[in-house]
Amino acid sequence: MSEPATALQRLQDHLHETRVLGSISSALYYDQNTVMPAAGAEWRGEQLALLASQIHARQSSAHYAELVAAAEAELGASAPAERRRNLQLVRLELERQRCLDPALVASLARAQSKGNALWQNARRHNDFPTFAPALAELIALRQEQAGQLASAELAPRSPWEVLAQPFEPDISTARVEELFAPLKATLPVLLEQVAAATAQQSGESTATAELPETEQERLCSELLDSWGYDPTRCQRSRSAHPFSCTVGPQDFRITTRVVPGQPFSSFLATAHEWGHSLYEQGLPRSTDHYFPWPLGEATSMGVHESQSLFWECRVARGRAFAARWQPHFVAGAGADRWGGIDGFWRGLNPMRPGPIRVEADELSYCLHIVLRFELELALLEGGLPVADLPGEWNRRMVELLGLRPASDSEGCLQDIHWAEGLFGYFPSYALGHLISAQLAEAMEQQIGSIEAHVAAGQEQALQQWLAAHVWPLGRAVNGEELVEQVTGERLSATPFLTYLEAKVQQLLSSVRH
Amino acid sequence: MSEPATALQRLQDHLHETRVLGSISSALYYDQNTVMPAAGAEWRGEQLALLASQIHARQSSAHYAELVAAAEAELGASAPAERRRNLQLVRLELERQRCLDPALVASLARAQSKGNALWQNARRHNDFPTFAPALAELIALRQEQAGQLASAELAPRSPWEVLAQPFEPDISTARVEELFAPLKATLPVLLEQVAAATAQQSGESTATAELPETEQERLCSELLDSWGYDPTRCQRSRSAHPFSCTVGPQDFRITTRVVPGQPFSSFLATAHEWGHSLYEQGLPRSTDHYFPWPLGEATSMGVHESQSLFWECRVARGRAFAARWQPHFVAGAGADRWGGIDGFWRGLNPMRPGPIRVEADELSYCLHIVLRFELELALLEGGLPVADLPGEWNRRMVELLGLRPASDSEGCLQDIHWAEGLFGYFPSYALGHLISAQLAEAMEQQIGSIEAHVAAGQEQALQQWLAAHVWPLGRAVNGEELVEQVTGERLSATPFLTYLEAKVQQLLSSVRH
Repeated sequence: MSEPATALQRLQDHLHETRVLGSISSALYYDQNTVMPAAGAEWRGEQLALLASQIHARQSSAHYAELVAAAEAELGASAPAERRRNLQLVRLELERQRCLDPALVASLARAQSKGNALWQNARRHNDFPTFAPALAELIALRQEQAGQLASAELAPRSPWEVLAQPFEPDISTARVEELFAPLKATLPVLLEQVAAATAQQSGESTATAELPETEQERLCSELLDSWGYDPTRCQRSRSAHPFSCTVGPQDFRITTRVVPGQPFSSFLATAHEWGHSLYEQGLPRSTDHYFPWPLGEATSMGVHESQSLFWECRVARGRAFAARWQPHFVAGAGADRWGGIDGFWRGLNPMRPGPIRVEADELSYCLHIVLRFELELALLEGGLPVADLPGEWNRRMVELLGLRPASDSEGCLQDIHWAEGLFGYFPSYALGHLISAQLAEAMEQQIGSIEAHVAAGQEQALQQWLAAHVWPLGRAVNGEELVEQVTGERLSATPFLTYLEAKVQQLLSSVRH
Repeated sequence: MSEPATALQRLQDHLHETRVLGSISSALYYDQNTVMPAAGAEWRGEQLALLASQIHARQSSAHYAELVAAAEAELGASAPAERRRNLQLVRLELERQRCLDPALVASLARAQSKGNALWQNARRHNDFPTFAPALAELIALRQEQAGQLASAELAPRSPWEVLAQPFEPDISTARVEELFAPLKATLPVLLEQVAAATAQQSGESTATAELPETEQERLCSELLDSWGYDPTRCQRSRSAHPFSCTVGPQDFRITTRVVPGQPFSSFLATAHEWGHSLYEQGLPRSTDHYFPWPLGEATSMGVHESQSLFWECRVARGRAFAARWQPHFVAGAGADRWGGIDGFWRGLNPMRPGPIRVEADELSYCLHIVLRFELELALLEGGLPVADLPGEWNRRMVELLGLRPASDSEGCLQDIHWAEGLFGYFPSYALGHLISAQLAEAMEQQIGSIEAHVAAGQEQALQQWLAAHVWPLGRAVNGEELVEQVTGERLSATPFLTYLEAKVQQLLSSVRH
């Protein structure tokens, strides 16, 4: 093979090979979580560690830095904007890799592994104090990391802001607070309305009716078929926790799980993961110019989550969708266990706050995130001692959600994120709800009511709109810019709250009927 | 990490990482053949090619050669025999890698890829002439490769012998001819006996009874459970062609397929692949000393095949096993479709020659191999023109098996091996039958009748014997040495032919009853 003629091409070849290695990791991850026997875990760890070290070396080596610099030097004034943007993003990531002290990277890896193990144990035994020192160490290391990374940033950023950049590029604390303030003000009020209205009813536990596993599997397949699932490019399996992953430019995988006693869990998880996968499938990767470059990637975790939440919440938890699918569930269960279409729809939308984030409904979910965001800030920047975390957690739970966790295992020990030193990630989950609602509003202005499309079995129209306006942007714009470009408005909580207020009224009136 | 203290340890670390990369390829291969969507094939090709080039570089680099030389220099006179043997095998493989011209390696890869594509097409359209030039090129390249590799061999070897070494270390043409001569003399006679005895009967097509797919799956699971399948270390899936692969030292996979109209196919394939997997599971890999080293590997394809054939033919096609499992099949089919236990047993042992190797029974299988072995010699060393291959194939089929293929697709185009330039591999399949029979004879001398153990449901005793005598040897000895060490006799065709003669008599008398 002859040496490529341009520095840009040489850089692209390098990025391409890095992408191949990354996709091998994805394939191993998929295998690990779907079929790998338990005893294979240790060796799988070695395989993934070897790939990770190869990828890290490729992303931080002097050779790579030279390739980037040469491509930048070659960039003429007339170069297309996409190329300029690609190189900007490549440069930013390179600077981040290179300003980190390798000793800190190694300390962090060790602390994460230790943190995870101690957390597993602490959660199992409801024993926060045994985990606290590991958490304190992770916080200190992340603060140090943020300090080192700050020099790569183009703007001055606080430690939390620096750590949040990989998930939500260009995000600031002030902006998150601004977006979350209306959620804090309004969601508790809506929750109280629902609680007051449903207090009269005796517990309608429709959502817990049993549905045979094979029927759940069949319904998930039917759902995907109706949403354009293409088995020549996609693969679906079972795993302990549902996820979506991309193994190659034409190889998309999703997983679901069947939870006993929760007949909607696998169905809604399928809708959610398929939303993630559709976004990945729609990213610009068809041309050589995009695929190995940053522009071929998802722009933020918030936007990614908006795509999964759109299909899970806006479509699959909607009234029109419930009306269409209730007969399928009744057929699968052999009888109507949900009390007609409205009972079935309410089963899909419990609207009852609980202590666990991953089990939360649309109304309480974002309050779980507000709590975590504020505590992350307090831990990283506000001097909150780790020992005070459980008390602070429980106090804020009462304040925001009106309930007190029965234990730390159901409280500040419930999520894995902090146990691996992952700070700055949680807000993306809530931003996903906000972005989904604002995109949905713009979609309805252009193509009419989502519910009407769903009632007519025309989800394809929704997909086409997203495929035309959202997915092809890749990282050409950040999450907020994407929303503004697509909707013409700055991102705000208003569309989400407007949507939820209407939904709550509709749900409550369905009970009164 | 500090540098390891000894040259041996540094070499082991290098081999360990090579092994990790190889096992990643195995995981991708498993994924590719069980769940990967079709459109993922091109990218998977890139992933595998990248790993292959990394592995090749690690096995042929100057750095690796230095590591090997340093470990050899460190080897004192009192070093254990295993260490000496490991280094010998490592050195041999290194010399093989290093005496190959990289240009030839590249030409071969291209010719293999072209050969495969042209073969697929030629087989589909029964058009040998379109494939012939590619085959001629592959033969020429392999002859050139054998010439280059010959300099790494410790003994003078013919081209075919050089090419067969990776599959059957230390094998010679004369030795294969010596082992195959009794097969050529006896098997056609046995086939005629069967044909004469069954000519009176109207076609007993018991083996083609239908069995629902879910029942076949269930029977395969039952079989594996009864043979000690451990789901914490093993995984079973479906694929187009059954195979066994090892993804890590504690991660073993096998696959099966369900063939419509062939109710025993999945069951026997499961027995076969599980035999391969048991050998892999029993190889010495529990200590650091063995796993990344040659001694932790299977010693030859013939020995590997002997382990799969033992469980497929000797156990699962035996009368005692048929008697135990016939009721399970009858229950699965909802009725006895096989005519009692004897009819069921005969269904497992059709003993009717056909043109296709992979569908052949125990009696005709080795004759398919004899034919291929002799033609390989003729093509590589005897000057047989490629254009004459179809005619020679058909002439020898009539001679050996008494039948003429209806087309080249059913004749010399049926196997993929030559289309990828794979010469020297076929004999291992027949050696597997011979080795299995000779090991079985020794096993019976020590623990008594295999059939009696099977009748009592005591296959565990057979496994324990293999685990004690065969599997732990790894590559400490070659295939022939293994047989001699375990059985006290030099490998011969006699135990195989004795076993088959008795089986034929038993089968024929089961018809007469």
